[in-house]
Amino acid sequence: MKIARFRADRRVAFGAVMGEEIVEIRGSIYTRFRLTDTHHLLSDVKLLPPTEPEAIWGPGLNFADHVGFASSMLGEKIPLSPDHPEPWHKGRNALTGPEDPIILPRDSDGDLHYEGEAVAVISKNCRRITPAQAGRYILGYTCGNDVSERSWQSKDFSFWRAKGSDTFAPVGPWIETDINPQDLEVIVRLNGEEVQRAHTKDMLFTFAEIVSYISQQVTLHPGDLVFSGTTGTTKAMKPGDWVEVDIPGIGVLRNPIVEEFDASAL
Amino acid sequence: MKIARFRADRRVAFGAVMGEEIVEIRGSIYTRFRLTDTHHLLSDVKLLPPTEPEAIWGPGLNFADHVGFASSMLGEKIPLSPDHPEPWHKGRNALTGPEDPIILPRDSDGDLHYEGEAVAVISKNCRRITPAQAGRYILGYTCGNDVSERSWQSKDFSFWRAKGSDTFAPVGPWIETDINPQDLEVIVRLNGEEVQRAHTKDMLFTFAEIVSYISQQVTLHPGDLVFSGTTGTTKAMKPGDWVEVDIPGIGVLRNPIVEEFDASAL
Repeated sequence: MKIARFRADRRVAFGAVMGEEIVEIRGSIYTRFRLTDTHHLLSDVKLLPPTEPEAIWGPGLNFADHVGFASSMLGEKIPLSPDHPEPWHKGRNALTGPEDPIILPRDSDGDLHYEGEAVAVISKNCRRITPAQAGRYILGYTCGNDVSERSWQSKDFSFWRAKGSDTFAPVGPWIETDINPQDLEVIVRLNGEEVQRAHTKDMLFTFAEIVSYISQQVTLHPGDLVFSGTTGTTKAMKPGDWVEVDIPGIGVLRNPIVEEFDASAL
Repeated sequence: MKIARFRADRRVAFGAVMGEEIVEIRGSIYTRFRLTDTHHLLSDVKLLPPTEPEAIWGPGLNFADHVGFASSMLGEKIPLSPDHPEPWHKGRNALTGPEDPIILPRDSDGDLHYEGEAVAVISKNCRRITPAQAGRYILGYTCGNDVSERSWQSKDFSFWRAKGSDTFAPVGPWIETDINPQDLEVIVRLNGEEVQRAHTKDMLFTFAEIVSYISQQVTLHPGDLVFSGTTGTTKAMKPGDWVEVDIPGIGVLRNPIVEEFDASAL
């Protein structure tokens, strides 16, 4: 099932996406819910980020072919053959939805890159779970873009602004609950042209392993998001561009790049 | 005024602390509120973390005499004379309240340190504010303990577990709204013995400067917490210890250290 969060007539609700329609849900997507008789056309609603997470996690380097690229940016900060995930916080403030603009900060020098990723959605509080148990604590998977300002990423001590500036975490368009998370193709297109293609079978740590690892020290909560990590090398996006993260079987997350509006210049 | 968040009779409320009493508040502590006729004895309520933040921020190195200590742990990761803050996320899951246990994770090798700090409480959404404007976006100040597992701090790429494990962010006992944040003494006692003493006049970046800096790329929200950074060198705490962060003019935050309960050993 595809579960979306959306706004229609100023009201926010969850719904099941069925073809061109969305059927409203009553109850909690994390525990029990039922479909209602309220239908909307998908084209009539505004899709929102599919959850309201307490935390958004990156796994650290998780594809072998991204290691060289990352080391060239970060120097020796990252072990070249990680034997465990290196989790980090992507700012909750960065969360944004399908079709929403990714804003290029006006004090960036423009080195703003996409990172197309699959994203796990936590369904229940969990702590100290094993990889074998993790599936029971994951509701499903969606598309995410780990937007990264490469110049800040190499300069700063943490990823707070390189990966955590407002709008740097587009997620959506919805959660697919029935899918094998380690058998997903993740394709990124920039203005319609393919610029990145990854397969989640190549993740160094599976979603189950990453979620289990984080849960050893941290309680995860319903709605929390765990990104897969990205692959290969990436390119800069510029205002006016559209970026798409396409995961066949889930859906397509599309966002425009927009220059920051400078209110002080008025 | 001292504003506390507390639980009494299974209900959570905010109140103004007056001597040995707490007077319930109706309304929002961030916008408008009034005192009610409902009084409790402070000793009858359970104090909670004073806000429910979306984010908890550390400023990076912010006292000159902590620089040497930090470099010895982190190698060359941190610039020795920072010309701007280096913000990082302290996990929201780590938040805990006055008197609540700080849990020593069972897979820690025991190098668990206190860091006594003053903490600013954001009162309004803010973005791109100047240091001169920051005071208008801060409700007040409270005590915080930036609990740090030094072994993980030196090993890991991010602070996710070194400073973000569950219970590693005790905050409280309440928010003082009428105080000069750059004229506070911060004293830490371990089992009654003073082990750390700092003064916020020695912060390399003031609260106003840190909040302004973060707000250039990140929208801060009501209730968000911004730590001051810590000073000097610190020592390990062990199960059975009590740690106190005392800021005269605000109050005392006390927490016991407790070993993690191993459910799997039952």
